[in-house]
Amino acid sequence: MVLLDGKKLAGRMLDAVKNDVGALSKKPRLAVVVVGEDPVIRSFIREKKKAADRVGIDVRIYPFPADITTSALRGRIARIVHEKENSAVIIQLPLPSHINRQYILDAIPPEKDADVLSSRAIGNFAAGKGLVMPPVVGAVMALLEAHEVDWHHKHVAILGAGMLVGRPLALWLTREHAHFTVIGADVERDADRVRAADIVISGIGKPGIVTGEMIKEGATVIDAGTSESQGKVVGDVDTDSVRPKASFLSPVPGGVGPMTVAVLMRNVAALAQK
Amino acid sequence: MVLLDGKKLAGRMLDAVKNDVGALSKKPRLAVVVVGEDPVIRSFIREKKKAADRVGIDVRIYPFPADITTSALRGRIARIVHEKENSAVIIQLPLPSHINRQYILDAIPPEKDADVLSSRAIGNFAAGKGLVMPPVVGAVMALLEAHEVDWHHKHVAILGAGMLVGRPLALWLTREHAHFTVIGADVERDADRVRAADIVISGIGKPGIVTGEMIKEGATVIDAGTSESQGKVVGDVDTDSVRPKASFLSPVPGGVGPMTVAVLMRNVAALAQK
Repeated sequence: MVLLDGKKLAGRMLDAVKNDVGALSKKPRLAVVVVGEDPVIRSFIREKKKAADRVGIDVRIYPFPADITTSALRGRIARIVHEKENSAVIIQLPLPSHINRQYILDAIPPEKDADVLSSRAIGNFAAGKGLVMPPVVGAVMALLEAHEVDWHHKHVAILGAGMLVGRPLALWLTREHAHFTVIGADVERDADRVRAADIVISGIGKPGIVTGEMIKEGATVIDAGTSESQGKVVGDVDTDSVRPKASFLSPVPGGVGPMTVAVLMRNVAALAQK
Repeated sequence: MVLLDGKKLAGRMLDAVKNDVGALSKKPRLAVVVVGEDPVIRSFIREKKKAADRVGIDVRIYPFPADITTSALRGRIARIVHEKENSAVIIQLPLPSHINRQYILDAIPPEKDADVLSSRAIGNFAAGKGLVMPPVVGAVMALLEAHEVDWHHKHVAILGAGMLVGRPLALWLTREHAHFTVIGADVERDADRVRAADIVISGIGKPGIVTGEMIKEGATVIDAGTSESQGKVVGDVDTDSVRPKASFLSPVPGGVGPMTVAVLMRNVAALAQK
């Protein structure tokens, strides 16, 4: 079993981004909108800040109180987005549940949308346009390519259909005319189909839900699940039982997470260059 | 085996649309941009015109020569789109191969995009926004619902990942957190997975490619394939061999086709109302 080392790969990608950023006439700046306070959110932001420092991208945090209304927040983001200094703007998720999330995400125009979560950026990506790809797609592609896992002639199972993992991956694989299965609701109901897949990418957000008995001998397993357990981010894959079955495994932490941050930085650089 | 009667169902949907149109203060008009001449294109337009007449929607055809350039065409569409009288604008497909298709489709703003083919309209649909749904999605939903085929707890196979059938259906099923498989490239390579599906929707465009031996006993089969054979539109399904296996079959002609036209009219009415 080979561990897909997202940390090492992310380092290499960040080195390349650093080169690109160095060639720009002006230092890019990433604006991060943060609503409320949370230890997990803080750790996400810390990782992004660290990667940005490494490649020479400025980060500016815009903090807002957890009880801000949707319309007030949207108004504030409209101004943040128009600031010339901000090459890209992202909304740190999750947002408090009273906020209309898609409406907030849609305040970011595609040319500054490094997370590809606004409906316009999603549409551009689905239609094969757009300068940048959703970070999780770039992360999965890079992990597979670095280890020469050829997904073109394999069957991919996507577990979960959320906006951060399942949806962008499904859009990508549709665009690519790939062969894939989406298990959008209940993995246990469709364990046989997971077991028939050559590549399993999980983005459900339930610790340990993907067990060895769902995995085909020799499959590639990419854990893109994130849930919070005692203030730490944990994945979907039950590593102990999956490890003996998989030939490649991208674990949490250290796999998709750091790669996603690296692709985000690549996106910021690409948007700044444009 | 029950034939899913798209023609009858389309008639009922058109009756409802006629009511909605009757309640509008102004008669809606559908603008149809047509590039070049072709007997199949002509027959598509004839069907749309007939449905529009029935519900009280005006149709205005904008014909252009087959050798028009992409930029000239885009310029003309920009003007068509701005005409107040046009409640909705569609581009009749296929376009000549020298035309940049997505660039042309993107000339239509979401509030007039009755076919949901511009990248903005696609993004709205993927993100769960937007006033209207892609016609094929509305057609498939109506066919399944009318015959009480509950796709929520079934596995759906989508054959083909094209912009008119496979892609919008994949977006829809992702949004719905459904369980589904997309066979984007080579159906024969994945015949086993087609055979394991409860609902098979084919949008490949190769006559007879879906045969009875790919179909599970009792499955629902929806033929959304369109190819041209001797000036006629033919589907993907080999009816003779599929008929004894399927419990429900939506054939070509008479299934998805007329339903798609009816949903298009419903979309025009919805956009006009807005």
